[in-house]
Amino acid sequence: MALLVEKTTSGREYKVKDMSQADFGRLEIELAEVEMPGLMASRSEFGPSQPFKGAKITGSLHMTIQTAVLIETLTALGAEVRWCSCNIFSTQDHAAAAIARDSAAVFAWKGETLQEYWWCTERALDWGPGGGPDLIVDDGGDTTLLIHEGVKAEEIYEKSGQFPDPDSTDNAEFKIVLSIIKEGLKTDPKRYHKMKDRVVGVSEETTTGVKRLYQMQANGTLLFPAINVNDSVTKSKFDNLYGCRHSLPDGLMRATDVMIAGKVAVVAGYGDVGKGCAAALKQAGARVIVTEIDPICALQATMEGLQVLTLEDVVSEADIFVTTTGNKDIIMLDHMKKMKNNAIVCNIGHFDNEIDMLGLETHPGVKRITIKPQTDRWVFPETNTGIIILAEGRLMNLGCATGHPSFVMSCSFTNQVIAQLELWNEKSSGKYEKKVYVLPKHLDEKVAALHLEKLGAKLTKLSKDQADYISVPVEGPYKPFHYRY
Amino acid sequence: MALLVEKTTSGREYKVKDMSQADFGRLEIELAEVEMPGLMASRSEFGPSQPFKGAKITGSLHMTIQTAVLIETLTALGAEVRWCSCNIFSTQDHAAAAIARDSAAVFAWKGETLQEYWWCTERALDWGPGGGPDLIVDDGGDTTLLIHEGVKAEEIYEKSGQFPDPDSTDNAEFKIVLSIIKEGLKTDPKRYHKMKDRVVGVSEETTTGVKRLYQMQANGTLLFPAINVNDSVTKSKFDNLYGCRHSLPDGLMRATDVMIAGKVAVVAGYGDVGKGCAAALKQAGARVIVTEIDPICALQATMEGLQVLTLEDVVSEADIFVTTTGNKDIIMLDHMKKMKNNAIVCNIGHFDNEIDMLGLETHPGVKRITIKPQTDRWVFPETNTGIIILAEGRLMNLGCATGHPSFVMSCSFTNQVIAQLELWNEKSSGKYEKKVYVLPKHLDEKVAALHLEKLGAKLTKLSKDQADYISVPVEGPYKPFHYRY
Amino acid sequence: MALLVEKTTSGREYKVKDMSQADFGRLEIELAEVEMPGLMASRSEFGPSQPFKGAKITGSLHMTIQTAVLIETLTALGAEVRWCSCNIFSTQDHAAAAIARDSAAVFAWKGETLQEYWWCTERALDWGPGGGPDLIVDDGGDTTLLIHEGVKAEEIYEKSGQFPDPDSTDNAEFKIVLSIIKEGLKTDPKRYHKMKDRVVGVSEETTTGVKRLYQMQANGTLLFPAINVNDSVTKSKFDNLYGCRHSLPDGLMRATDVMIAGKVAVVAGYGDVGKGCAAALKQAGARVIVTEIDPICALQATMEGLQVLTLEDVVSEADIFVTTTGNKDIIMLDHMKKMKNNAIVCNIGHFDNEIDMLGLETHPGVKRITIKPQTDRWVFPETNTGIIILAEGRLMNLGCATGHPSFVMSCSFTNQVIAQLELWNEKSSGKYEKKVYVLPKHLDEKVAALHLEKLGAKLTKLSKDQADYISVPVEGPYKPFHYRY
Amino acid sequence: MALLVEKTTSGREYKVKDMSQADFGRLEIELAEVEMPGLMASRSEFGPSQPFKGAKITGSLHMTIQTAVLIETLTALGAEVRWCSCNIFSTQDHAAAAIARDSAAVFAWKGETLQEYWWCTERALDWGPGGGPDLIVDDGGDTTLLIHEGVKAEEIYEKSGQFPDPDSTDNAEFKIVLSIIKEGLKTDPKRYHKMKDRVVGVSEETTTGVKRLYQMQANGTLLFPAINVNDSVTKSKFDNLYGCRHSLPDGLMRATDVMIAGKVAVVAGYGDVGKGCAAALKQAGARVIVTEIDPICALQATMEGLQVLTLEDVVSEADIFVTTTGNKDIIMLDHMKKMKNNAIVCNIGHFDNEIDMLGLETHPGVKRITIKPQTDRWVFPETNTGIIILAEGRLMNLGCATGHPSFVMSCSFTNQVIAQLELWNEKSSGKYEKKVYVLPKHLDEKVAALHLEKLGAKLTKLSKDQADYISVPVEGPYKPFHYRY
Repeated sequence: MALLVEKTTSGREYKVKDMSQADFGRLEIELAEVEMPGLMASRSEFGPSQPFKGAKITGSLHMTIQTAVLIETLTALGAEVRWCSCNIFSTQDHAAAAIARDSAAVFAWKGETLQEYWWCTERALDWGPGGGPDLIVDDGGDTTLLIHEGVKAEEIYEKSGQFPDPDSTDNAEFKIVLSIIKEGLKTDPKRYHKMKDRVVGVSEETTTGVKRLYQMQANGTLLFPAINVNDSVTKSKFDNLYGCRHSLPDGLMRATDVMIAGKVAVVAGYGDVGKGCAAALKQAGARVIVTEIDPICALQATMEGLQVLTLEDVVSEADIFVTTTGNKDIIMLDHMKKMKNNAIVCNIGHFDNEIDMLGLETHPGVKRITIKPQTDRWVFPETNTGIIILAEGRLMNLGCATGHPSFVMSCSFTNQVIAQLELWNEKSSGKYEKKVYVLPKHLDEKVAALHLEKLGAKLTKLSKDQADYISVPVEGPYKPFHYRY
Repeated sequence: MALLVEKTTSGREYKVKDMSQADFGRLEIELAEVEMPGLMASRSEFGPSQPFKGAKITGSLHMTIQTAVLIETLTALGAEVRWCSCNIFSTQDHAAAAIARDSAAVFAWKGETLQEYWWCTERALDWGPGGGPDLIVDDGGDTTLLIHEGVKAEEIYEKSGQFPDPDSTDNAEFKIVLSIIKEGLKTDPKRYHKMKDRVVGVSEETTTGVKRLYQMQANGTLLFPAINVNDSVTKSKFDNLYGCRHSLPDGLMRATDVMIAGKVAVVAGYGDVGKGCAAALKQAGARVIVTEIDPICALQATMEGLQVLTLEDVVSEADIFVTTTGNKDIIMLDHMKKMKNNAIVCNIGHFDNEIDMLGLETHPGVKRITIKPQTDRWVFPETNTGIIILAEGRLMNLGCATGHPSFVMSCSFTNQVIAQLELWNEKSSGKYEKKVYVLPKHLDEKVAALHLEKLGAKLTKLSKDQADYISVPVEGPYKPFHYRY
Repeated sequence: MALLVEKTTSGREYKVKDMSQADFGRLEIELAEVEMPGLMASRSEFGPSQPFKGAKITGSLHMTIQTAVLIETLTALGAEVRWCSCNIFSTQDHAAAAIARDSAAVFAWKGETLQEYWWCTERALDWGPGGGPDLIVDDGGDTTLLIHEGVKAEEIYEKSGQFPDPDSTDNAEFKIVLSIIKEGLKTDPKRYHKMKDRVVGVSEETTTGVKRLYQMQANGTLLFPAINVNDSVTKSKFDNLYGCRHSLPDGLMRATDVMIAGKVAVVAGYGDVGKGCAAALKQAGARVIVTEIDPICALQATMEGLQVLTLEDVVSEADIFVTTTGNKDIIMLDHMKKMKNNAIVCNIGHFDNEIDMLGLETHPGVKRITIKPQTDRWVFPETNTGIIILAEGRLMNLGCATGHPSFVMSCSFTNQVIAQLELWNEKSSGKYEKKVYVLPKHLDEKVAALHLEKLGAKLTKLSKDQADYISVPVEGPYKPFHYRY
Repeated sequence: MALLVEKTTSGREYKVKDMSQADFGRLEIELAEVEMPGLMASRSEFGPSQPFKGAKITGSLHMTIQTAVLIETLTALGAEVRWCSCNIFSTQDHAAAAIARDSAAVFAWKGETLQEYWWCTERALDWGPGGGPDLIVDDGGDTTLLIHEGVKAEEIYEKSGQFPDPDSTDNAEFKIVLSIIKEGLKTDPKRYHKMKDRVVGVSEETTTGVKRLYQMQANGTLLFPAINVNDSVTKSKFDNLYGCRHSLPDGLMRATDVMIAGKVAVVAGYGDVGKGCAAALKQAGARVIVTEIDPICALQATMEGLQVLTLEDVVSEADIFVTTTGNKDIIMLDHMKKMKNNAIVCNIGHFDNEIDMLGLETHPGVKRITIKPQTDRWVFPETNTGIIILAEGRLMNLGCATGHPSFVMSCSFTNQVIAQLELWNEKSSGKYEKKVYVLPKHLDEKVAALHLEKLGAKLTKLSKDQADYISVPVEGPYKPFHYRY
């Protein structure tokens, strides 16, 4: 796509695939609203007082229907919003169109190149002369990374006059990041400094992004406060677990129509994502084998009747491979070459480096046959048999299906709204330093409570006497910080 | 679509949506072949002797990728084939294109009108002056119905000179059937007589079709032998059960992206289809309520922890409604009006009359909003709330997803191949009278055996001593006829 | 125990372990009555008319609390009853005591020797000079066998004057049968002829007993009508499946307290019993491997995510072995010698010959350490490691626990009551010949219906129009004979 | 029982039910050792260096077979041990006998009165003139409570000369505690001060005990360091969850033989214990309804398809009630009076005050019928219907079955051994203050690792590169402190 910013009649910038899908997007957004009671309750509770009035929010998070409801919750609370996706395949184009037309500046489409991806990210960060953003909603930490790398480069440039060198790295993606920063430096050598000075804070959605934040906190390089939304119970134990339990089979079925029953499936990693995936596959009738490095998670897997082995033990007998580790180099070229014909290989963990896509792509003589978008059969010259890679090794539930369903994303995103509110409301109080925070438990419990009525659930109330007996307030929070749920 | 027959360069007739999808269809057919070991084994075993040489087969069965593998198994065994779909929404257009281009005369596309549907059926039956078909593969019995109604009308015409009167029925679909027969009568008053004289037999795929056949047998009106494929164990206890367990959530997710976990789901009917649906919904985290007329099936449901209630008891609190009964008038307009906003209503049982679509469509002031094809929101004027109807009340797994997966259809379709072979090989032996037959158990067991290796399963072998002890042959069959599995 | 018949103050004969347990038995019988709605409904419906008035019923069926409720249902309907157990370990002594004291002549205790077992069987058949029985309730067919063997021996004796020779067989149990018949011949050479002439029919409870009956029918040697209760849907698909799902883990836990989660369990056979066992073990967190001879059942196992292998493949890595086959020679000495230390081996199929107990007992140097009754550790001299055998290889759910729970036995036993009524009511009508019959479907459905209310289940009623549409009566039966549920 | 201490031939004190059961106990202990790999590995690793040489350990923890293996692990590491149970019904008398005979001073039997219970506790704490204990293993905190209350009373006595007054409390049990302290004061007014001065620390097993400890820490009244074993992941997420999943149905079946399938079961509380119970009941075929105060746990329940309601909503329609809350006054007399006849009521949470036993016992005209020990039917005079109370409202898995199985207790108890070692090794280092600690994560992971081999599980190893990528050491620990598993 030509990387030209377009404008709505009202003058708002955007770049999406097909504006004509906006009506379709709007219909699906309206369906999703019914399934996202936490967000809708936030609109009712906070909308009237317009707490985000004056706030400019940049978001980098899968531009899906569910995210559309999040964005319109932020705008309903008074914010001005610019948005990009955090994954080249995860945008739902009709969602992007509806939001671009109606609510916020969107730069996202399904199937971006890496170059396009970072262009979109930069657009979402670019609030023009008036400056911004004030707040960041991040997923995976790419926006946060760009600002931090930008600031770093500007400091070097200021001291030495040296531009960052894209050739200094082998990482194709990081090359692009450095190029963008380099170009930015040329026009404004304080661009990222101005941003970081203004940013009140970031709320981060994922394990991977949170890990980066804690590393920066440990290194003392974190430039603004961060709220770790991922580790809200109502996020990590819901979206990761129940979301993947839903969206893994959804992605498998849409991409391959394969019958899961009777198959041997390997799930690499048995964290929350792995637990959700393994549960879904087992329930669908697969025989599930787990690989794990952590003995506690491994023991949990055995207690559910799952076999725990190494990938090498089972690579040639399994039918479906799913990586969920959040680590890299899980399924390597050598593994893939030993797999059965038409074994399915996919990743629902974090980046596409869980699978050795580079090794696969550069294997001499390998042949890629695209069955349909996001579903490729790679044929090895040695055996003339092939394996099926989903979503080019990226998150398959977003690439091949529509990601997590609305209801569970409502939990996650209500945490986002509360985190953004918290950062914004406390922007001048000094409550939040340049550290990583989790939301207090009573807000976590509130998020859950907002979702119960929709399901017809009725809570029991503690008597004062009972509350005293277990030493908790009648209204909660009910659990100590270390409680694991 | 203009109802004009087209021809391939080789002169074979067809009418499909888009011939340019043939390559895509071919790729998916090749994937499916790996998942359909029973059909591929049939090609290996029977292909060399070309048993169907000279046989003209008409098929009326969902024109999907899996059916494509069935069709090409029939042609690999020597048959000439004409095909239509048995459901207006179930055709996969890329499958139809690939088969039309490469293997058989296909008349099918996704989204036929009823008029188009019966035109396609008639085309599939029309073998031209040379006559035919010799064999019928039927699903739901529409092809068989057309011939039987045609013969009936011809007899009346012969006696009385009267044409059938489309206005004699209120049933919109039957009106069309009568019109077609009427037109046929004008050109050849013996058209259906010639067909029934030639037809060696039909093999029927479904419960609904089989029920019609047994009724005709009971009435003495059955015109040719029929093999009841539906009641092969490897069909009814596999495709109905495991197929729906797979394809119900697939259809729900593709159509609505709704989170199943936490929802209240009502499954009307707890036969094999209902069992598969209830299992899938329960495993996905729904609370499932079953409605049943049969106390035995109801008791089975309770043993799985499912609540058994009437539809009236739960109509206003459930989120998802699935009909699986094979009966009519299950969910009526009055039910639908009492449902929660955005309740999902769908049918995976048989015809669209399980849901009162007519009542809905003709309800004054009702508004239909098409979210996307096969997903409609119907808004009631009384409440301004709506419900979501999938696939216009027709089979949602075919309309909203891709039907059952290849592996389980391989079981069903291997039964079809064996049934067709049996009918054809015995065409002159008198073995089959104008009755309904099921396949003998050793063939049923053979179908299962052909599917085990793909799954890595290893059978135990009986010793002669053990076989004698339980009075079965060492090689099977291992169970009495009445065994229920 | 000294084999002396005792008498109650009312003069009724009995032989039980400990009459002082009668009160305890009565309390548990009262609890069970609440869980056995089918039997209690039978008392309400039929009791007033005393249909069994004059009928003498001999029963040979596990003398448990549940059977006690059956016996007292028969007596409540007017019958006179004599009872023995059909398994040396299955009697619950408190149940036997309560019935012996209050209702019927009982000859049964937990832990009979084989000699004692057959003495009890003979006592249950001995109605004294007045003759009897009129009806037989059989489980496994031992009572039926004794009469048939008795008649055979009497015929030989009449012709040749020869007594049966216990030394003519290696089978320890059959030696005892022949001895008993021999002794009987000496006192009355027409004893068993008189019995078979009087017996109106037998209703048989189990797969194993039914198999014997069909063999006799095929051989033309069946001496009286038989009703196959086992193949009532409400028996075979309930008691075998749900009963074992309950009682297998119950037996394992009571006998060994072993944690099932995390273990590897092998289930030999995947019929209804095997399905129940595999489901229970899987749900408890074991990894379950199935062995099967029948490809259809094997394919069903794979569809549930169970691995299907041969015993040899897994004998040295599994922790728990369960036989459910109804066949013999399933787990042999050589298998047991290869097992892990403290592997648990048990049988819930039919006779103790599913496990090679003889081979184990006669293995030179083997050491048996009784942990507690029915739980033995057998130590092999070669390795000094041992395996744990439950219930001496006999039915472990009866030997180590209390058998199936009341509710599911209520289904089975209501079938028994209905079968006995049917035989008795039709004793003069000629309806039943010397063949094996199953109960008609409407009675099967009735049994189910009697159990729904207790569970709070509500049935949907067909309209006349719907019933016509699917060609069934409004009141049922709703399914064709071949329906598999 | 007469409360007289007995002595073994070697002079060790004890008081158990029946010393003749020691051999049976020893056999079961030997079986359990095979199932407790963590404890056996601890013996191998630490036994040779005798780290507990000189340590006197008092334990108050269910005196079961599994605890026997713990005790003998402590003695194998050099400790001298005195033991009592922490529950009046939980002792397995054969385990107590074997340990009393062979390894440690035991004061415990099944079915103690409260008076006897506290006598046993006092005996276990009484190390005679030489003083002791050095270390305490506690479960529920009664031993810790006795010392703390003793010290408090001694301080008052020292100041004011006043004895504690048993009549100052309505709590029957606390009356006894005060009486014991009072008697102790008379003989030695510094008895508990000497103890607390010597005690190096306590390791506490349960949620309830831990809660007390944190309260004392918060109040500043904690007298010695405490290690919270309960919150080791390998304890709380294993024993509570998987242990109860096993032992709840075990207790239900042994106590009542009730069929769980088809029943409506209410689980009060959805913490780890409740999760295990609900899973077990659901898998066994019950329809499970959860009551919860905490919206997060409630939302988790809904995601598993469980209905969340209040007890009042369902009290009259459920068949089985299980309390798991760790709170009091959950099921009150008024609830019980509204229940169905023979509804089963039991507690697996903490104390018997989860159920209003006092209200029940003192209800005018109520009748208690003991079916068998720990299984009582209570009949209400108003309705003449009854409910069934298990284990007199105390922990039903210990009262009616044998508690958690060995394997999962091996996880918990290996944590205990490690905690005791930690306290003892650091007794002079000042590492532990008068606070509550949890074990560091690497020890938690070690406990898990020790249990994997027995299950045949194989761990994957991180490469250095991968470990760096996710910023963990190659050898672990692999997760941040707040990780929830």
